[in-house]
Amino acid sequence: MSNNIPNVMDAAVLNKPMDIEIKQVPVPSIKEDEALVKVYCIGVCGSDVHYYEHGRIGRYVVEKPIILGHELAGEVVQIGAKVANVSVGDRVAVEPGVACGRCEYCKSGRYNLCPDVVFMATPPVDGAWAEYVAVRSDFLFRLPDEMSFEQGALLEPLSVGMHAMIRGKVSPADRMLVTGLGPIGLLAIQAAKIYGVTEIYATDVVPFRQELALKMGVTAVIDPSKENLKERLAELTGGQGVTVVVESSGNGRAIADAFGAVNRGGRVVLVGMPAASEIPVDINTIIDGEIDVYGLFRYANTYPSAIQALSKSDIDIEQVITHKYELKDIKEAVEVARTEKETSIKVMIYPKL
Amino acid sequence: MSNNIPNVMDAAVLNKPMDIEIKQVPVPSIKEDEALVKVYCIGVCGSDVHYYEHGRIGRYVVEKPIILGHELAGEVVQIGAKVANVSVGDRVAVEPGVACGRCEYCKSGRYNLCPDVVFMATPPVDGAWAEYVAVRSDFLFRLPDEMSFEQGALLEPLSVGMHAMIRGKVSPADRMLVTGLGPIGLLAIQAAKIYGVTEIYATDVVPFRQELALKMGVTAVIDPSKENLKERLAELTGGQGVTVVVESSGNGRAIADAFGAVNRGGRVVLVGMPAASEIPVDINTIIDGEIDVYGLFRYANTYPSAIQALSKSDIDIEQVITHKYELKDIKEAVEVARTEKETSIKVMIYPKL
Amino acid sequence: MSNNIPNVMDAAVLNKPMDIEIKQVPVPSIKEDEALVKVYCIGVCGSDVHYYEHGRIGRYVVEKPIILGHELAGEVVQIGAKVANVSVGDRVAVEPGVACGRCEYCKSGRYNLCPDVVFMATPPVDGAWAEYVAVRSDFLFRLPDEMSFEQGALLEPLSVGMHAMIRGKVSPADRMLVTGLGPIGLLAIQAAKIYGVTEIYATDVVPFRQELALKMGVTAVIDPSKENLKERLAELTGGQGVTVVVESSGNGRAIADAFGAVNRGGRVVLVGMPAASEIPVDINTIIDGEIDVYGLFRYANTYPSAIQALSKSDIDIEQVITHKYELKDIKEAVEVARTEKETSIKVMIYPKL
Amino acid sequence: MSNNIPNVMDAAVLNKPMDIEIKQVPVPSIKEDEALVKVYCIGVCGSDVHYYEHGRIGRYVVEKPIILGHELAGEVVQIGAKVANVSVGDRVAVEPGVACGRCEYCKSGRYNLCPDVVFMATPPVDGAWAEYVAVRSDFLFRLPDEMSFEQGALLEPLSVGMHAMIRGKVSPADRMLVTGLGPIGLLAIQAAKIYGVTEIYATDVVPFRQELALKMGVTAVIDPSKENLKERLAELTGGQGVTVVVESSGNGRAIADAFGAVNRGGRVVLVGMPAASEIPVDINTIIDGEIDVYGLFRYANTYPSAIQALSKSDIDIEQVITHKYELKDIKEAVEVARTEKETSIKVMIYPKL
Repeated sequence: MSNNIPNVMDAAVLNKPMDIEIKQVPVPSIKEDEALVKVYCIGVCGSDVHYYEHGRIGRYVVEKPIILGHELAGEVVQIGAKVANVSVGDRVAVEPGVACGRCEYCKSGRYNLCPDVVFMATPPVDGAWAEYVAVRSDFLFRLPDEMSFEQGALLEPLSVGMHAMIRGKVSPADRMLVTGLGPIGLLAIQAAKIYGVTEIYATDVVPFRQELALKMGVTAVIDPSKENLKERLAELTGGQGVTVVVESSGNGRAIADAFGAVNRGGRVVLVGMPAASEIPVDINTIIDGEIDVYGLFRYANTYPSAIQALSKSDIDIEQVITHKYELKDIKEAVEVARTEKETSIKVMIYPKL
Repeated sequence: MSNNIPNVMDAAVLNKPMDIEIKQVPVPSIKEDEALVKVYCIGVCGSDVHYYEHGRIGRYVVEKPIILGHELAGEVVQIGAKVANVSVGDRVAVEPGVACGRCEYCKSGRYNLCPDVVFMATPPVDGAWAEYVAVRSDFLFRLPDEMSFEQGALLEPLSVGMHAMIRGKVSPADRMLVTGLGPIGLLAIQAAKIYGVTEIYATDVVPFRQELALKMGVTAVIDPSKENLKERLAELTGGQGVTVVVESSGNGRAIADAFGAVNRGGRVVLVGMPAASEIPVDINTIIDGEIDVYGLFRYANTYPSAIQALSKSDIDIEQVITHKYELKDIKEAVEVARTEKETSIKVMIYPKL
Repeated sequence: MSNNIPNVMDAAVLNKPMDIEIKQVPVPSIKEDEALVKVYCIGVCGSDVHYYEHGRIGRYVVEKPIILGHELAGEVVQIGAKVANVSVGDRVAVEPGVACGRCEYCKSGRYNLCPDVVFMATPPVDGAWAEYVAVRSDFLFRLPDEMSFEQGALLEPLSVGMHAMIRGKVSPADRMLVTGLGPIGLLAIQAAKIYGVTEIYATDVVPFRQELALKMGVTAVIDPSKENLKERLAELTGGQGVTVVVESSGNGRAIADAFGAVNRGGRVVLVGMPAASEIPVDINTIIDGEIDVYGLFRYANTYPSAIQALSKSDIDIEQVITHKYELKDIKEAVEVARTEKETSIKVMIYPKL
Repeated sequence: MSNNIPNVMDAAVLNKPMDIEIKQVPVPSIKEDEALVKVYCIGVCGSDVHYYEHGRIGRYVVEKPIILGHELAGEVVQIGAKVANVSVGDRVAVEPGVACGRCEYCKSGRYNLCPDVVFMATPPVDGAWAEYVAVRSDFLFRLPDEMSFEQGALLEPLSVGMHAMIRGKVSPADRMLVTGLGPIGLLAIQAAKIYGVTEIYATDVVPFRQELALKMGVTAVIDPSKENLKERLAELTGGQGVTVVVESSGNGRAIADAFGAVNRGGRVVLVGMPAASEIPVDINTIIDGEIDVYGLFRYANTYPSAIQALSKSDIDIEQVITHKYELKDIKEAVEVARTEKETSIKVMIYPKL
């Protein structure tokens, strides 16, 4: 046993909606196939904010105090007896959902659909807004020297974008529209760049986000509150239109419009979950256009390729980080993410800053 | 010119909605890459009935008298100078949409999306409720001796089912639900059998259709007006559920329910076009279940494989034919198709009976 | 602990090449995620015979006494504390390779390539020519009442055929050639039937195998020692040729000829492992024909679909069983499989007959 | 008729092997679906050199004088009555193979396998080492202002690389080896960069080519005459190996080694045609590794995506041009390409320089 690992640690515990506080909790003990990771930085995700505010997301309900947070990177400080893929001292990114490896979904390569997955910060499973976390080692990925811890933590939301490219069968032959420029939309754009897409259009109504998107490599931004989406796309593409849409806003109107915005034979990847239980959809547009619509749930097998792509290219995903906080200021961090949607994108927490 | 081919022929002309009559019209003359086909039999399609009743389908409007009908087989009686794939005397099925072969859709194998396709009985293009029709020869397919003209004509609606299997990536590993047991639903079931699917469930409220489906090889029928679809599917499959849904009813409720009826990770193929311009859809079910939704528009490259499968198996698609009429009785034929939905499936017209 | 399970059992132990005998060995004890299966019947595979005769296959070497056998079905007689998918008394088929579930191959759905797989009867792992075997329960599959233990045991070699269909992207649109009519070739033909293929040609020089293939549903048999393969295929298919070849003979000449036997744009699945370390291949045929060549290693995710297909169809795979022996007669059983290639296909062992 | 188009033009005619000369020939007249293109620049391809030297490639034999050359860009100077996609004055790249659009291959999106394709500079079809050429307009692609004529001409060999990416299902998740650094290998590397691949290794023995590859973005170069390929790849990739190989050398040894150089589960795309009619291949490596091997014949549907990618990125394919000649110096141009393999990559001809 390592002699430097304390018995207790600080963790941000959500007691009930809107009530979060730093508590002393036991440092997790590891199993033989796990490693203990000292958390260097960890992001605030929209789902964390949603649990903080509402205490539930769909079928997942916070019924007892929970530690949130699942976008993280850190340093391995202890490994179990059977761990071979990482060593103490390794800088690692953490993939936060541990799948069973034995069900039909896992065996067929879609472990993101594993019914027995243990996913951080999804009730009742604790997350990692804390100093340490124990993780099964096959979900740890070593970071090359070229990559920062921040990039490592951002691999989690970037993975959603990478998975959107896989689900959407995206290639350099595509012209893409990304609707919604929150963290997921902006990182889906980076994923598109990784996949070689050179024409990427995006929609949002917030000027700060529009400007950031342009800075992060989008071809052009459309404000759907001021411009006709379809007409503007036709203009921007010289009449060619877009072949794939990644819907990341969760906005009902944006979802409904996505099917008409894409070319016949095109693909729409649905990422953003709408608040409304039902959205009116023009089904005939999907049928007449022979469109593919792909739902997306988390991601699978994205970390190795994302690490390779980021470490060997000049794509700079850290630009999405707008705020940084120590763990002790978690309340303020979450409130910024919750309320300042016009100026914040990704808020990053540093347990040991 | 062949000496047996007359100059004029009988054809069923739709003058305006609800007004159809037999007229004498010129026998079409063929181009060098076309063949003249003497029509042996030709089906009445739902779209024919819709034009007959309403004079339009979506963006396609009957603005001048038109000959309907596009599900046909017959005999080649004349060929153009450059035709090599068929000969006079050949029994052939006719694929009724002639694509350009030069646009991006055609060149990438999706000629069903060709913007310049010339499709029979889609205004303003004439169809083949007539004694003869001229067709570009690469859309003619020789029928083996084992296949009847009726089977040849039914290749057209069967092709929609075959295309649904291709779009839905259907394999023997699937368990399928087909919603709606009109001609398309019943023939999608036959296509599923061709693709090796052994568990096929179906929904419909009409007893005659339910019984025909059972006779044609469906595993079990569910009446969604009396049974809970999801529960019944769980029961019938021993809790395993279905992995793919082919929605062929066009019913708004059936469409909305399809996404919840399929397993997580499953696929939904949308075939039936709803009357309503918008259907309320639970988008979160598609996202949370990571479901694929595939619109379907006509078909491509299905005739050769359908002919091979039908001629070498004991699948009997002719069971969908419930009524047969001479061309002169076209009015009665169309009225049966339009009004007797509880007892008619496919009405077949015989120009030369 | 179940009170009916003995401490020791009979097992056929290969001491060294050509030296096999029945010994008393301990009944395996199970882990919490394993079940103990009482073996009802278990086949003799070509690889078993090869180890028996030569003591090695490529990089796998028999260095200490080993129990062979990996094609089996039986009854669950004991389950570990964490086993939920099977119960004592269940009739089950056993998938004989237990993958790690954690490596990149496993996570991407190709667990057959798992470097840490524990595969029965592959040195130094024991197989199941014995009365009992312990298996991790997620590799056990319940047999429906309609299926015999024999069919359950044959799921293993059939799985190779099913995997060949998946690797070869086989659909009802294909016309297929299967080269070599040993157990794998004959079962690949059954897999092709499951996948809806209606034109299946096969090659072999042994009359008994040719006749059995015809009885088991092949369209026509070609004797490559007497007929020109390419010409005969053209004749049989009316000039259309075959779109996919499944090479199961391992014969050098058959392999070399496969690439020229398939149509341009076609696919060749390589299943049979040749004895020669190098086979001369006309690479330009592969390039000019833009052919896909797929190596095949075991199988993955085939048991559920094979069980579904067999239990709901009239495909009769038991016809490949030509000999049945008690476990005590293992020497004779293996010798028949080794020497009587003109009259034996699959030899089945019954530990408790 | 345009008044500036002469009746005769200069063209480089190959009379027989090694005998090429400039002759006056008629300017081609165009059909209603064709455009006349004034050739600005046109490359010398390995196949041109091969016809020049040997008078044949496989089944294609030069039996009468022929104009070679098929890698070109130029300006539209005349269009047929039915041409709508290009206008007089447009700068265009020419895809040099005109497919029929009507056969099974064309209809399924693989028009490169069309048996009736008319491909420039493939006997007996004339190519475009001339001042003008007539082309069916759907094989002309407008060049954006950002693209030079040289880039336009290089789209042809780049298309082979793009098609290799499509055939090989290449994505940013891959690590790639390209064997052989002639024009095709170097441009396959650029295609890989377009497809987002960030780790690309290459082999060649010629220092000039090795250096150019490094300048054009390859991660590292291996000299297989001095280094052990497999060991060096393991070193360079930190033990991870490569997941896809693009074999563009046509060298027998390189081809044989490709199957062992790729990871298990990997893919090998065969592009370079070997001189030997047979290459000894270790088939068991393909089977045991469950490797996919893809032959590649020309390309299909690559021009639009290549134009999009090149015009919106900083990838500079013009670096492969090592020599430029006027048309009148064709003999010298071809001799450089034929004999100076250590210093020349792509030789470009300018009919109007």
